[in-house]
Amino acid sequence: MKTVEEQLAVIKRGTDNVVVEQELIDKLKRNQPLRIKAGFDPTAPDLHLGHAVLLNKLRMLQDLGHQIIFLIGDFTGMIGDPSGKSVTRPPLTREQVLENAETYKQQVFKILDENKTEVVFNSSWLEKLSPADFIRLASQYTVARMLEREDFNTRYTGNQPIAIHEFLYPLIQGYDSVALRADIEVGGTDQTFNLLMGRELQRAYGQEPQCIITMPLLEGLDGVKKMSKSLGNYVGIQEAPGVMYTKLLSMPDELIWRYYELLSFRSAEDIERLKESVAQGANPRDIKIELARELIARFHGEEAAANAHKSAGNRMQDGELPEDLPEIELAALGDMPIAAVLNQAGLVKNAASARDMLASGSVRVDGNVVGRDFIFKQGAQHVCQAGKKSFARITLSAQ
Amino acid sequence: MKTVEEQLAVIKRGTDNVVVEQELIDKLKRNQPLRIKAGFDPTAPDLHLGHAVLLNKLRMLQDLGHQIIFLIGDFTGMIGDPSGKSVTRPPLTREQVLENAETYKQQVFKILDENKTEVVFNSSWLEKLSPADFIRLASQYTVARMLEREDFNTRYTGNQPIAIHEFLYPLIQGYDSVALRADIEVGGTDQTFNLLMGRELQRAYGQEPQCIITMPLLEGLDGVKKMSKSLGNYVGIQEAPGVMYTKLLSMPDELIWRYYELLSFRSAEDIERLKESVAQGANPRDIKIELARELIARFHGEEAAANAHKSAGNRMQDGELPEDLPEIELAALGDMPIAAVLNQAGLVKNAASARDMLASGSVRVDGNVVGRDFIFKQGAQHVCQAGKKSFARITLSAQ
Repeated sequence: MKTVEEQLAVIKRGTDNVVVEQELIDKLKRNQPLRIKAGFDPTAPDLHLGHAVLLNKLRMLQDLGHQIIFLIGDFTGMIGDPSGKSVTRPPLTREQVLENAETYKQQVFKILDENKTEVVFNSSWLEKLSPADFIRLASQYTVARMLEREDFNTRYTGNQPIAIHEFLYPLIQGYDSVALRADIEVGGTDQTFNLLMGRELQRAYGQEPQCIITMPLLEGLDGVKKMSKSLGNYVGIQEAPGVMYTKLLSMPDELIWRYYELLSFRSAEDIERLKESVAQGANPRDIKIELARELIARFHGEEAAANAHKSAGNRMQDGELPEDLPEIELAALGDMPIAAVLNQAGLVKNAASARDMLASGSVRVDGNVVGRDFIFKQGAQHVCQAGKKSFARITLSAQ
Repeated sequence: MKTVEEQLAVIKRGTDNVVVEQELIDKLKRNQPLRIKAGFDPTAPDLHLGHAVLLNKLRMLQDLGHQIIFLIGDFTGMIGDPSGKSVTRPPLTREQVLENAETYKQQVFKILDENKTEVVFNSSWLEKLSPADFIRLASQYTVARMLEREDFNTRYTGNQPIAIHEFLYPLIQGYDSVALRADIEVGGTDQTFNLLMGRELQRAYGQEPQCIITMPLLEGLDGVKKMSKSLGNYVGIQEAPGVMYTKLLSMPDELIWRYYELLSFRSAEDIERLKESVAQGANPRDIKIELARELIARFHGEEAAANAHKSAGNRMQDGELPEDLPEIELAALGDMPIAAVLNQAGLVKNAASARDMLASGSVRVDGNVVGRDFIFKQGAQHVCQAGKKSFARITLSAQ
């Protein structure tokens, strides 16, 4: 294993906080693999680079020789929303949980080493708790301290209802650390309260408290808000190479070094060198391309990384096709003029713009420039291109 | 069964509150035995007349033809104080619970008809709840509403800690009403919040909500504070007839009608007649004696009631012995002077007062007046009397 100092440098890179550093040093000094817990929600298996920040940290810890415990919090997922108020949170079946877990693994093991990762489900111990165990667990924390949690406090003071079972969830998450005898827990800064709960409960149950490592929340491509699928400012780790490439190159220059720090596996020295090159006049776009290639290689392999620029919609005039060509099927009553097809398929803004592009010769069907008199036959399939960036393989099926 | 109006009159006698009266009328109109829940703590089986107020109401309901469910809340008792802060609340074993239940029954069935009472333990359904059931239960109520409960509110605003499991206990008590499908719950006014919880939870679990009947808290013999063993202002229902008699006759006159209303089974008309007699000059002491006889008869039988005055310490000059003569055993190194024995046995205030009483001829040993030269032999047993009210059968055993 590396020295404690070397490990600490790796661990602290890009972290938001380490609680308590001296305790972490003491644990590392034992020179034994530490048990590192990270919890994941079983309902949202569609990961993006925001999740990768945390997974990267786990990978680094794994490479340092520690044991990663990838915890799927299925227990609460299988209960759903017991207040019955949210129809969007129906309880998951065990089959759904296992299915989501598989989807998770496919994504997660692009970053983590599968052979060195233990995947566990908290239902396996939580379902065995007796009512008495539950009450003992709930006795370990006070109402006042729970109400100090920021979101609870905001709701309580704002007269928004908090159901009592919501107070049990942080306790349950904390108890997971007891059940796993975790040495370290890694999570987002927004999870700090819950991670600290693990420390408290371990102490209450006679264990050495875990250290916690919190990772910052990654800004989305807008450079302002937290990366999130619903905000549209994300890069999904399953997105096609060309899409990743285009998205990453669209980030504002100010975001470059933040993304390098949190997403790249390059050494700090390497990153320092890149910074210097930009200071001496290098084009930031080239630095973004380097990051995009590293990330695409991680999620799709080296070859995809080398070719991603081709499908990114910026060199299509030479007849190349995007690798991630969308497939679109339109239902039609009969044959249709090309302008209507382009419009319905969403390759153009509207019918007027379709006509303009056809008139200016910027629409291709199967690689050939076509005019507004081109008729798309019912039952046919063509690769259509409108301008430099809009492509699709379109099928016109019978209605 | 009696008419709804007649039943309502019996039910409302002495009650503090009925929630909701119209619902109660609707339930009574069905002309079916109703399921009436009353919950008792498994740790304090030493009942006094304060408890009898509630038990009397149950007896009246029983006599109206309804089904009494005597619930022993052993579930929480077997958990004890899970925070470990109170050494005075160690968890009870199942054996202790059953033992306490027997002690309860011995006392309770002096008021309730054993053949018409169902005794249940809430552990029998609560221990079967799964963690998911528990969370669903906790989801039925909000933190803000729980903090409205007076004692919680006082503690929260006074920065006194409330452990989260304390929020679960009212929910558990309320869930008992669901498990029992209770039609009515009877409790003290101080239990109003918990009784209303039963209503809410029944509604949440798709049942018709129970009606609640709250009984006032009986003032102790001081006429001021709630009757309580720790305040010393109580009459225990297992206390000896003479003790009951003396205690009841010591109550202030203002308390007479309150005690009649809540403790006597006499009709309202009967009590009205007694009131008139006092208004016309009857001695309130005689009215107290009538109540004492009724209560002693209930707990000890008619004969004990007829003779209670003899052991009440107010007519001992004719040589009668109290029926509840205390037995005192003193360990001695050898023979002892009578003054020292009286002092050690607590029959006199101090050694000086023992000497005074011996000098004035108010000490008797086995019925004979003795002086200060009387020697109590080691190994002997004598009935000793100091003054008119202090008696004991004393044994002087070897140390």
